[in-house]
Amino acid sequence: MPTQFDPPSGTRDFLAREFETRERAFTLIRSVFAGYGFEPLGTPAFERLDVLMGKYGDEGEKLIFKILRRGQHESSGEADLALRYDLTVPLARVAAAYGSQLPVPYKRYAIGPVWRADRPGHGRYREFTQCDVDTLGSASPLADAEVICAVHDVLAGLGIGGFRFLLNSRRVLAGLLEAFAVPASLGAGVLTTLDKLDKISPGEVSRELAGRGMPAGAAADLVAVMTAADAEQRIRDALNNSEEGAAGLHEVDTVLSLLAGQVPAGRVRFTPRMVRGLSYYTGPIWEVTADGVASSIASGGRYDHLIAALGGPDVPATGGSLGVERLLLLLPGGELDSRLDVAVTVMAEQYAPRSFAFAAAARSAGLRASVYLGGSGKLGRQLKWASDSGARWAVMYGAAEEEAGTATVRDMVSGEQVRVPASGLAQFLAERAGQPGHAGRGEQGS
Amino acid sequence: MPTQFDPPSGTRDFLAREFETRERAFTLIRSVFAGYGFEPLGTPAFERLDVLMGKYGDEGEKLIFKILRRGQHESSGEADLALRYDLTVPLARVAAAYGSQLPVPYKRYAIGPVWRADRPGHGRYREFTQCDVDTLGSASPLADAEVICAVHDVLAGLGIGGFRFLLNSRRVLAGLLEAFAVPASLGAGVLTTLDKLDKISPGEVSRELAGRGMPAGAAADLVAVMTAADAEQRIRDALNNSEEGAAGLHEVDTVLSLLAGQVPAGRVRFTPRMVRGLSYYTGPIWEVTADGVASSIASGGRYDHLIAALGGPDVPATGGSLGVERLLLLLPGGELDSRLDVAVTVMAEQYAPRSFAFAAAARSAGLRASVYLGGSGKLGRQLKWASDSGARWAVMYGAAEEEAGTATVRDMVSGEQVRVPASGLAQFLAERAGQPGHAGRGEQGS
Repeated sequence: MPTQFDPPSGTRDFLAREFETRERAFTLIRSVFAGYGFEPLGTPAFERLDVLMGKYGDEGEKLIFKILRRGQHESSGEADLALRYDLTVPLARVAAAYGSQLPVPYKRYAIGPVWRADRPGHGRYREFTQCDVDTLGSASPLADAEVICAVHDVLAGLGIGGFRFLLNSRRVLAGLLEAFAVPASLGAGVLTTLDKLDKISPGEVSRELAGRGMPAGAAADLVAVMTAADAEQRIRDALNNSEEGAAGLHEVDTVLSLLAGQVPAGRVRFTPRMVRGLSYYTGPIWEVTADGVASSIASGGRYDHLIAALGGPDVPATGGSLGVERLLLLLPGGELDSRLDVAVTVMAEQYAPRSFAFAAAARSAGLRASVYLGGSGKLGRQLKWASDSGARWAVMYGAAEEEAGTATVRDMVSGEQVRVPASGLAQFLAERAGQPGHAGRGEQGS
Repeated sequence: MPTQFDPPSGTRDFLAREFETRERAFTLIRSVFAGYGFEPLGTPAFERLDVLMGKYGDEGEKLIFKILRRGQHESSGEADLALRYDLTVPLARVAAAYGSQLPVPYKRYAIGPVWRADRPGHGRYREFTQCDVDTLGSASPLADAEVICAVHDVLAGLGIGGFRFLLNSRRVLAGLLEAFAVPASLGAGVLTTLDKLDKISPGEVSRELAGRGMPAGAAADLVAVMTAADAEQRIRDALNNSEEGAAGLHEVDTVLSLLAGQVPAGRVRFTPRMVRGLSYYTGPIWEVTADGVASSIASGGRYDHLIAALGGPDVPATGGSLGVERLLLLLPGGELDSRLDVAVTVMAEQYAPRSFAFAAAARSAGLRASVYLGGSGKLGRQLKWASDSGARWAVMYGAAEEEAGTATVRDMVSGEQVRVPASGLAQFLAERAGQPGHAGRGEQGS
């Protein structure tokens, strides 16, 4: 039940575990994209309202969070700024603003929240993370293939199981329409219907095509070719009768040949019926499906004139977007960091400086460590805290240890206790942490 | 000159270099805080308006960015949400929302943007990053010392030079007022004036104190003690005449003794005249100054009832805040990542799959690598791109290499070229990258 302390509808608080799971995924994504020479870009959470308006259609525009003017203008009830709705319009603005300062091609990735006043629920959020990777300024299919490769490496790196790329080209679709003599005016509608071939029966698709104005015979022919056992060969033959279709086929085959060595066989497949709804695509298009997920987990394509339409320069462009929120739900459960590796007791005020120093020694050995901050002088309470913190070791120090110049290290799993010379504590813990069965923390830090 | 493509007033775009500099600092900060067992917390960019209102005073409230209601309510001109103004009110809300799910004590850090409609300029932004570290639920001075230690480690880790902690306690200040018989009604004003001792002359401070209603003699005595050559001893003597003062002194000395082994001598100093303006502090208070910086680069203190006042549970609390934007300006110039380590030419379409594979091989060796994505088949143009990308090596592959089963590796610094068996390229590059004079990329990735 929502309370007054819940975050606003459609937004989330991320406590430690969830935050760290997300951050680990983002770190992997950044690392993969950087490996391909994509560079990061950060833009503000809000843009001037006029930068966003007119870019997302009427339905999209309704979902924009607008920011009220301030000071004496607040009472006007008008907005002058708005939260970003995606990462593409900011990219177009950046391309326009920094044109000559940017490398050519400009390969960038961006990971960050966007905001849409959608109805929340069923995994839909009003604040959610987008993750985009794009190359501006290259018309080469190498750029398309590179984006696909990078997205592949991210998905493989995250450990996503059973994912597949569906590859097509807008020019293949245009060629199909040409080969089957579909009038230009019907093109978009026909493609929308063809895209339903994985959801409804071929007969229903034929009828829907006829309903859209295609001659019934041509509609049936088209569907027959698309659903034949040897569909790919028949489609290839049909495409080769159209200049545009042949060009699209060459585009697809070029990308496939570039991916051949990098993406395991069978993980990417030419899928001529795949349309992708967005009208701005101009060349190769692709999406990634995974076992047990209804919608795609990543998608992208070439969008050669979109940046200009969004207010940027007219540059060729291709890119992809990871469905981060969906991906995070698919992540194999990894080992989660506990809060602490080493919990240091504080048995009395006079021992506190020494306990403080022990915690510092443990940190110098690369471990997470803290002293007990509670008010109880009872060992049992302090060990319960150590256990609750997930600590692997408790370090205890009191009168006996002071006298002997030692610290007592308790293994919180086995319960075994050993006395260690105080000066050798860091090394002792470092050695234990390096042993099999306990992951060292060397790679930690983000 | 601002153009229509600039980010909104008071906000910034972060292109690669700046983004990476910031990200590196954040990674270090996260790593240090995690080492102390602080856990991350992420909260939404916006909160319900009522959660923020009434928390920041009239002046603060004017700076809140309010979000217009949506849909049919948009025309009302009313706001129901607002961008977060700091990270403390969200912390109070989280403490209230998840109370029993949070560990005790709850040690958390948060790094993220906040938004204030301040007048931009002179390093003031409307979107800027805050970085807070706090412990809720511990009344122990160990918690205060731990926060100070962690902030110290961050500053040292970032390589900030010549920084010093000024330490005091609100209870020391209360004790001073008591020892000098300042009426409670004058307390706050007197402290505000005393805080000016590092800016204006002792005589001026005395006069201002008298102006506030202190008897002239008492004002002169107080200033004399505060500015004496042996000020600290005289203040300690005075404080020991007051119960509150003695308690404050004990608090300060406890923190100092805990820090003694962890913070180099001289880096933290009891500074009785330091007041810190914020009225919510209840115990130890501190701030960090650095050479050549007028204002503090970090500050914090104990604020035992603030969380309750902000709508959370009434828990003891202590914490600190890093002035991230200011700190970033002080960072010693580090080596910046180039976009690429390895630039692979694509001399003709038929060689592209092989070039693609070479780039993948370089990435498998932990290097940043990409193929040429431009349209030119000229080697000179492609090498210029390699050079512009900051690549350490160019890998070239054409007819001669294909015949010989090799790739040509060009050292972009020396110009030296060697032929390497194609199958051994990854290993060759990995070995070269591991040699002194070139940092390997093993630690990269965030």
